[in-house]
Amino acid sequence: MILAADNIRITNSIIQRAVNNMDTAQVQGMAVKLQTEGANWIDINPGPLKSDPEKKMEFLVNSIQEVTDIPIILDTTNPAAIKEGLIISKNKAIINGFSLEHDKLARILPLAAEFNADIIGYLLYSNGHPPSDTRERLSIAIELYQKCMEAGISENKLIIDPIVAPLLWNDGTKRNMELLKIIRMLPEILGFPVKIIAGLSNLTSGIKDNYKKNILQTAYLSMLSASGLTIVLMNMLNKHPVETAKACNLITRERPFSVFEL
Amino acid sequence: MILAADNIRITNSIIQRAVNNMDTAQVQGMAVKLQTEGANWIDINPGPLKSDPEKKMEFLVNSIQEVTDIPIILDTTNPAAIKEGLIISKNKAIINGFSLEHDKLARILPLAAEFNADIIGYLLYSNGHPPSDTRERLSIAIELYQKCMEAGISENKLIIDPIVAPLLWNDGTKRNMELLKIIRMLPEILGFPVKIIAGLSNLTSGIKDNYKKNILQTAYLSMLSASGLTIVLMNMLNKHPVETAKACNLITRERPFSVFEL
Repeated sequence: MILAADNIRITNSIIQRAVNNMDTAQVQGMAVKLQTEGANWIDINPGPLKSDPEKKMEFLVNSIQEVTDIPIILDTTNPAAIKEGLIISKNKAIINGFSLEHDKLARILPLAAEFNADIIGYLLYSNGHPPSDTRERLSIAIELYQKCMEAGISENKLIIDPIVAPLLWNDGTKRNMELLKIIRMLPEILGFPVKIIAGLSNLTSGIKDNYKKNILQTAYLSMLSASGLTIVLMNMLNKHPVETAKACNLITRERPFSVFEL
Repeated sequence: MILAADNIRITNSIIQRAVNNMDTAQVQGMAVKLQTEGANWIDINPGPLKSDPEKKMEFLVNSIQEVTDIPIILDTTNPAAIKEGLIISKNKAIINGFSLEHDKLARILPLAAEFNADIIGYLLYSNGHPPSDTRERLSIAIELYQKCMEAGISENKLIIDPIVAPLLWNDGTKRNMELLKIIRMLPEILGFPVKIIAGLSNLTSGIKDNYKKNILQTAYLSMLSASGLTIVLMNMLNKHPVETAKACNLITRERPFSVFEL
């Protein structure tokens, strides 16, 4: 399981200030820290970028790739900002992402073909709503795959995000248990070892108590890992879930276990 | 997932002293504490009981059932002690357990039929060795089931223990990942919702660092829970794994989630 940091996001006030002031040192300090804590990938989420999308994305990507060469996830709905990120990325860049929504198919999906980049596809209806049962989820996954094929994107570039539901939703537990099943089924249904990503923070959205959030996140993270999740997007500065993710990687691997790697 | 406490065991020096001195208060204090922490069942493991097996088992069972009416698991290889426990138990008692070993089939399995008690069957060869692949595990599970049928024990009395392997074994990770698969497969293979128990402490046997033990146990516990484990046998005085078990129960249930239940 690849550990992707979700910490560089505009909703974090430190990052917001750094982007407004073009404060390279602040972003670089964070990026180095995330890598030290074990991040394999870094997601950058600068928001919808209504003003200066290219300039802000360039600032973030350049700041980060001056201090690390790990892959960067370009996480915005702004196609111009994604394109700028792809143009200037020296290392692997991942587009986050597309769905069956018309605008995303027309303006974001083609960028993956143009730049030969990995792209995350959300398991959502074209109206942005999440499907509510296994059959519908699988049918949307097949559609996402077909859209990639039509756009000339190779199957190993597709990363599916089945969308973790908040536990506080009325059917949150049901959705998240189905999601574990979907993760196990997708490679077989699609006929290749499709990569799958999940964002962990969504699980506990609305829950205030940090201790309970951690216990719930680590429990579900371990379930995702056992189901075969490829990439987890998570807060890499939260020690307990991060160490659980590393423990999962030791438990689920085929090689002998070594306690010194934890 | 039922939470069964493994704390009342002779290897715990407090329990050893209490059994030697017939110190009822000590055992009762522990039993009440375990139930307060959320234990649904209590396992009592007085060891092989070379001297006074009936007397010691009677002391433990009576001490506990004076203060709680939760089910007690009679965890010993001594058939006379198990029989005494079954005779005096006022509440549900579970025999722990039998295997394909000749002596256990001859002297322990018949007690389940005689007292209409639940019985745990170990997924082990008759020589006590654990099987090493999925096919062998399933074939032993079927044999355990058949032995129950031949002994006149109803299928809903059987609880299978697939035996968690220590991670430090050379093939520990491989065995434990297979075990998750076995737990998912057993109900389908046997054709009924067979109950399955797993002992968590075995996972980290040989690992000294308590923090790492907890991280590893909680990760694997969550995986077991998602696979459909019925009963986990664990240290109920270890806050972090216990709260994880409760979180797993909230996540895996079909009813809406409530953070106030954690």
